[in-house]
Amino acid sequence: MPITVVGFDGDDTLWHNETRFNLTQAELRDLLHRHVPDADVDAHLAEVEMKNLGMYGYGVKAFTLSMIETAIQVTGGRIPAADLDVILGWGKRMLMEPTELLDGVEGALRELNERYDLLLITKGDLFDQESKLARSGLAELFLGVEILSEKNVDSYRAVFTRRGVKTEEFVMVGNSLRSDVAPVVALGARAVHIPYHVTWHHEQVPEESLPSEGWYRLDSITGIGALLRSIGQPSPNGGRQRP
Amino acid sequence: MPITVVGFDGDDTLWHNETRFNLTQAELRDLLHRHVPDADVDAHLAEVEMKNLGMYGYGVKAFTLSMIETAIQVTGGRIPAADLDVILGWGKRMLMEPTELLDGVEGALRELNERYDLLLITKGDLFDQESKLARSGLAELFLGVEILSEKNVDSYRAVFTRRGVKTEEFVMVGNSLRSDVAPVVALGARAVHIPYHVTWHHEQVPEESLPSEGWYRLDSITGIGALLRSIGQPSPNGGRQRP
Repeated sequence: MPITVVGFDGDDTLWHNETRFNLTQAELRDLLHRHVPDADVDAHLAEVEMKNLGMYGYGVKAFTLSMIETAIQVTGGRIPAADLDVILGWGKRMLMEPTELLDGVEGALRELNERYDLLLITKGDLFDQESKLARSGLAELFLGVEILSEKNVDSYRAVFTRRGVKTEEFVMVGNSLRSDVAPVVALGARAVHIPYHVTWHHEQVPEESLPSEGWYRLDSITGIGALLRSIGQPSPNGGRQRP
Repeated sequence: MPITVVGFDGDDTLWHNETRFNLTQAELRDLLHRHVPDADVDAHLAEVEMKNLGMYGYGVKAFTLSMIETAIQVTGGRIPAADLDVILGWGKRMLMEPTELLDGVEGALRELNERYDLLLITKGDLFDQESKLARSGLAELFLGVEILSEKNVDSYRAVFTRRGVKTEEFVMVGNSLRSDVAPVVALGARAVHIPYHVTWHHEQVPEESLPSEGWYRLDSITGIGALLRSIGQPSPNGGRQRP
């Protein structure tokens, strides 16, 4: 079945994201170690983030609030307000940074745009994601943009229905097995996994939990055009293979 | 032209919202007055919120971050972290509160649902709004949900295009002249203004800046069925009138 619609994740697929969170988290570690030298800041922050996920959802604002909560808890309430103000400033810096595209993204999207309908399907904070897309210069290449609060079987199914997308003609491209590959393959569509060099612990799933067919892996987005062309053609095992 | 699609705003149109912000803001005022008795907390918070709007957008997380910033600034950095932790808790409480419907909402929506396609068109934080809708018990009554980062002529036009809505068959119902009435009327669709007893200063626009035709005012949502029926029928001045 020929592919007609290609969905792209945004964060860590088209533009750098997790590295920025990691850089800020390293600053938080340094700041809190000045108050509590032996604190396990990463573990504490991870715990706070997971506890808050159901209330805050994803994104920089949620991260900033969780950093402040972590700072207060780790220091037993002894952190001065001026230091918390510094954390507020980190959040704003993250929100205002230019969108830094991954290598090869613009060329790959321009090539694909001539052959397929492209959708941006991203999760996170609505305002933040729209702002990143606007700053990316890529907006004109997408037929549509879907910003979801969570990427799972139900939310992808809703996108397919809303957009009139046939699962067998759809491929999702992204860096997260949990969010971009597993739910898409479960719905009978295909997916391409392009790993980013760091993955947020929340997005990690054991690869063995995924089906062995229906998805592909690339090292870089530059190979996406050739891969989609090969997928779209009949092959001995029915056009579905995992390299 | 008969009406086929009715859009509803959520906050302060279907469920209480601004009163909750106001209650929390009153708590912030009390808290900060214990540190700086003569501080004009409301004015300072309003200024911080407006300054942050372009970075944070709308919603409880943005409000919480702006409250923390205000608290640090108003006290000159002397506020203890424990008090800032209390502010974090207010934000979480707002995010977890049950969705409290305005009087008559459920009956009005059930009645309209039999005659029109209903859309929820709300702005704010994606995660927060989806969560409020889920807790409202009203989700099944809406054919679709649009959560926008900003409600203006461009974003309404995009909704009409995406949903295949004809402007002349659409009516928007909401409490904000700025967000629910002005941009809709500017696009040639109609609107019904149902004022809420408090309005966030950011949503206030002078009524004289609106066109005199194309929109209507109701005291309560209970009259919406009758109003839409009368709008849908020919009248001496062409079916457009403002009571």
